[in-house]
Amino acid sequence: MTASHLADLRRELAHRGLQGFIVPRADEHLGEYVPARSERLAWLTGFTGSAGLAIVLAERAAVFTDGRYVLQLAAQTDAALWEQRHIEQDPPHAWLAAAAPKSASIGYDPLLISEEALGRYVAAGLTMVPARPNPLDAVWPDQPPPPLVPAVPHPLDLAGKSAADKRNEIAATLRAAGTDAAVITDPASLAWLLNIRGGDVPYTPFALGFAILHASGACDLFMDAAKIPGPTHAWLGNAVAIHDPSFAPGEGIGAALAALGGKRVQVSASLSPAWFAQTLRAAGATVVAGMDPCLLPKACKNAVEQQGARDAQARDAIALCRFLHWMDSAAGRETELSAAARLLEFRAASPLLRGESFPAISGAGEHGAIIHYRVTEETDRPIRPDEPYLIDSGAQYPDGTTDVTRTVWTGPGTPPAPLRDRFTRVLKGHIAIATLVFPEGVSGAHLDAFARRSLWQVGLDYDHGTGHGIGSYLSVHEGPVGLSRRAPPVAVAEGMILSNEPGFYAPGEYGIRLENLLLVQPADFSGASKRFLRFETLTLAPFDRRLILVELLTREERDWLDAYHARVLREVGPALEGDALAWLQQACTALAA
Amino acid sequence: MTASHLADLRRELAHRGLQGFIVPRADEHLGEYVPARSERLAWLTGFTGSAGLAIVLAERAAVFTDGRYVLQLAAQTDAALWEQRHIEQDPPHAWLAAAAPKSASIGYDPLLISEEALGRYVAAGLTMVPARPNPLDAVWPDQPPPPLVPAVPHPLDLAGKSAADKRNEIAATLRAAGTDAAVITDPASLAWLLNIRGGDVPYTPFALGFAILHASGACDLFMDAAKIPGPTHAWLGNAVAIHDPSFAPGEGIGAALAALGGKRVQVSASLSPAWFAQTLRAAGATVVAGMDPCLLPKACKNAVEQQGARDAQARDAIALCRFLHWMDSAAGRETELSAAARLLEFRAASPLLRGESFPAISGAGEHGAIIHYRVTEETDRPIRPDEPYLIDSGAQYPDGTTDVTRTVWTGPGTPPAPLRDRFTRVLKGHIAIATLVFPEGVSGAHLDAFARRSLWQVGLDYDHGTGHGIGSYLSVHEGPVGLSRRAPPVAVAEGMILSNEPGFYAPGEYGIRLENLLLVQPADFSGASKRFLRFETLTLAPFDRRLILVELLTREERDWLDAYHARVLREVGPALEGDALAWLQQACTALAA
Repeated sequence: MTASHLADLRRELAHRGLQGFIVPRADEHLGEYVPARSERLAWLTGFTGSAGLAIVLAERAAVFTDGRYVLQLAAQTDAALWEQRHIEQDPPHAWLAAAAPKSASIGYDPLLISEEALGRYVAAGLTMVPARPNPLDAVWPDQPPPPLVPAVPHPLDLAGKSAADKRNEIAATLRAAGTDAAVITDPASLAWLLNIRGGDVPYTPFALGFAILHASGACDLFMDAAKIPGPTHAWLGNAVAIHDPSFAPGEGIGAALAALGGKRVQVSASLSPAWFAQTLRAAGATVVAGMDPCLLPKACKNAVEQQGARDAQARDAIALCRFLHWMDSAAGRETELSAAARLLEFRAASPLLRGESFPAISGAGEHGAIIHYRVTEETDRPIRPDEPYLIDSGAQYPDGTTDVTRTVWTGPGTPPAPLRDRFTRVLKGHIAIATLVFPEGVSGAHLDAFARRSLWQVGLDYDHGTGHGIGSYLSVHEGPVGLSRRAPPVAVAEGMILSNEPGFYAPGEYGIRLENLLLVQPADFSGASKRFLRFETLTLAPFDRRLILVELLTREERDWLDAYHARVLREVGPALEGDALAWLQQACTALAA
Repeated sequence: MTASHLADLRRELAHRGLQGFIVPRADEHLGEYVPARSERLAWLTGFTGSAGLAIVLAERAAVFTDGRYVLQLAAQTDAALWEQRHIEQDPPHAWLAAAAPKSASIGYDPLLISEEALGRYVAAGLTMVPARPNPLDAVWPDQPPPPLVPAVPHPLDLAGKSAADKRNEIAATLRAAGTDAAVITDPASLAWLLNIRGGDVPYTPFALGFAILHASGACDLFMDAAKIPGPTHAWLGNAVAIHDPSFAPGEGIGAALAALGGKRVQVSASLSPAWFAQTLRAAGATVVAGMDPCLLPKACKNAVEQQGARDAQARDAIALCRFLHWMDSAAGRETELSAAARLLEFRAASPLLRGESFPAISGAGEHGAIIHYRVTEETDRPIRPDEPYLIDSGAQYPDGTTDVTRTVWTGPGTPPAPLRDRFTRVLKGHIAIATLVFPEGVSGAHLDAFARRSLWQVGLDYDHGTGHGIGSYLSVHEGPVGLSRRAPPVAVAEGMILSNEPGFYAPGEYGIRLENLLLVQPADFSGASKRFLRFETLTLAPFDRRLILVELLTREERDWLDAYHARVLREVGPALEGDALAWLQQACTALAA
């Protein structure tokens, strides 16, 4: 089937005089989850991973993805049609520069690529031609329509700050920088700025749309009127003018950008589609490259959002502890899929559950070693006795987003010593991050290594970052800060919520990951010459004591773990009863010294 | 006196139609130590710090330096003539953009500023005009001549690799990148590439000059013939053509660059003067921005250089241990200056000493808190009993460069507990770095925080990097790698030598710094999925046990320290005798558990 799709696209490209075309897995917001109509890569190639890109030439075509999806790419795409490439080892722009005919015109949809990404193709000497409307859309007859889930207010008792205050504060920063307006293309920023939520994409309560925030504090919102019911309209207020989200020339967003000729307008070069800066420049505006001005204030949760996060985590902990108790005797009876479903049921016992924050990673044994494993009917397998089982999951609640990973031993036997050694080293890394105190100004790239030291000492490591930011009833992966060597140089700041998830993976055997969420708090030292920060652990669930080699822990690490477990029992225990409570009491017993 | 210098310069600028001029503390190599003729900043302003910059306008003038030199700047410059500014908090380009008249022509000497630094002024909207010959030189009648110290061969039993091999290896990397030539402006790279040393600047055995390395492996060397005696000429060989180092149009270097029209030529945008890229572009060459191609191979010492470093450190350790023994009873009799002189005498006992690698930092009590303290006749003070004393010094030997810091208690009393606490925390940081094992690909920015954790835990920190690279009988500060949050994203690699020097500073009271040099070695793990690295400590001298709070150390830290002290005694002890040996034996005793 994808063979005909590819042939149709090639015909359309020839018709438009293009010798090539780029098909990223992206929508007009360049985010992680996209609506069905933007799954162009899957339609064209069959590949359904969440990160990838195809390049189509007349004679050759290639699909690129990262290490997480290499196996999936091979399974889902037809090697007779598609060359399969590693997006980091064999970057698309380099592949294209070598594969494209001399002076070929390569098309791209400027709504689906950032200026920064586009720049890599240009720097490689390629002739890049914007192609709108998207040529692929022209040959996709049954492309789904844009989602039209109504946007709803995110009330003040959850948001903690009014949209008017947010708009005025951001507008003040624009004025201070001599900037006339900022273009907001990130739906997380839009949701935060306007205190609205929606349901246009899976797992994240986005109401897809765009905004232009003016230095006056007034805001133009580009969103289908059908998505804005009366109460939401009233909630947005008079300072927010609602417009048609059309990209057609002279209409909607294009017309609004054209009206900014002569102004200084801020657009992100890395996170916004190139179309915005291109359209502004064509209108005579000065494009100021700069971070989306909502990113940093959104990442630093206010006191109401912080308390919401604590409440959401405590609620989630009850479901997770019930699940872990259930799981303790599930081996031999359940599968990866049924276990994930059971966890969702435990979560759904709360009327506040709004859904999962991402597809749960439920991996037994060797499946745990696949870092972004997603269990399907095809991959599902029984959870067997005496093997490790990894469950990484999260939920959306109106007051907060959760993300937690535990690795447990299914029993009833004793885990092998090497597994316990690795588990304990991962746990030591987790504790090293959880107990960090550090000065303001430090970024995640400077802290990541603490999580790895105990693995490094014996020649081991894990090939992912240690942590990412988390939204407040928003994205489970939120910028701009991460605990990672590749994190941008943005300082960790008070109010941020970050995951702490070191791991270890033995391919073909097992995977270990231990993840809690952390809230960045001030660390008060009397007389300190600068401000220091520390982490408050938000997530509450026991670590499997059977997998711990106590003699590998320092006294401080043991003390931390015992205190953490005592806290879990104290805060979660009152919500449990009977066998589940007895299990939790046992699971939270202090380690034998 | 500097008032007349400033007036003379202003007259010259007016004569040339310039409304402003930038005077960096730099020579044509943009390095740390400069010859006397390049001390233009000191001549103009009186300020003699090693980092700074002056800007002269018709009505205003300012001098900028960093935090290390703020006090010195205030003491040395006339506030009636010069505004005094912090170079990071108040960057020169921003100051100038605000202070310069509209559309003023601001002169700069393109031989004294990098393209990268120049770009900051251009980006600030300033009209920057290259001014050659340097206007300041025109009004400095007694400017010293360029140094003409003869260059000498650095023989193969010290260099470990022939200059021909080095040239051919670098040339191969140029060919592989499609580059026709590379311009070498860093005298450290020149010394390494051609296996020569000289004496043109203090503390570092540079033979100042420039080179163009061609992709063929042939080399044009621009150096005054008076600096190249017969044996050096023969040593350089036929593949190195010697030319006049003139910057005059159509002569020397300018003529050679002009001959590269149409070629692709690599020049560092950050470490080479802008003049080179400007001259190349004017000649029609394509300038390829790229790191000096010698930087990385020079930083990764070969086996001969590594053994040279061990030998040099062992030799230096004998002098240092003799000094520490002498120092143990010097309080009350000696001063900071006399102690530094005594240390140099101990070093000079070796006929291999070629000089200090930097001016020793000899700071008693509160002077130890001045991170780059340089003792002078004016600042000298007695070393008193019962205070901490910090000595940071290094030496140049033909087989290696040393740099070591110890902080000792002068006795005879017991040090106060807070001092011992801080000292022990610094020591814990030092040990954390010394015992690190880490995978290839990690840069110094990812490792620096290990040295700080024990201080951070109690709200303390130090405001300098943890370590820097060291040359092989070359610069005591060598790029491209450092252990610092601000280190460039270059991976730590086998064969590099880095300092490990965490500290703590109580302004007005005392300073602590503990510095050893480390050699990066492979860490062999059977079956590891990637290569790991570890550090071999090169420096041998006891840490003052009286300043250690044993109960703050973990067992592993105690074990490391005891093993290190046992090694110091084993390796240095045989060279000592009598009281000095007895002192070392006592200083190297294992800690009481």
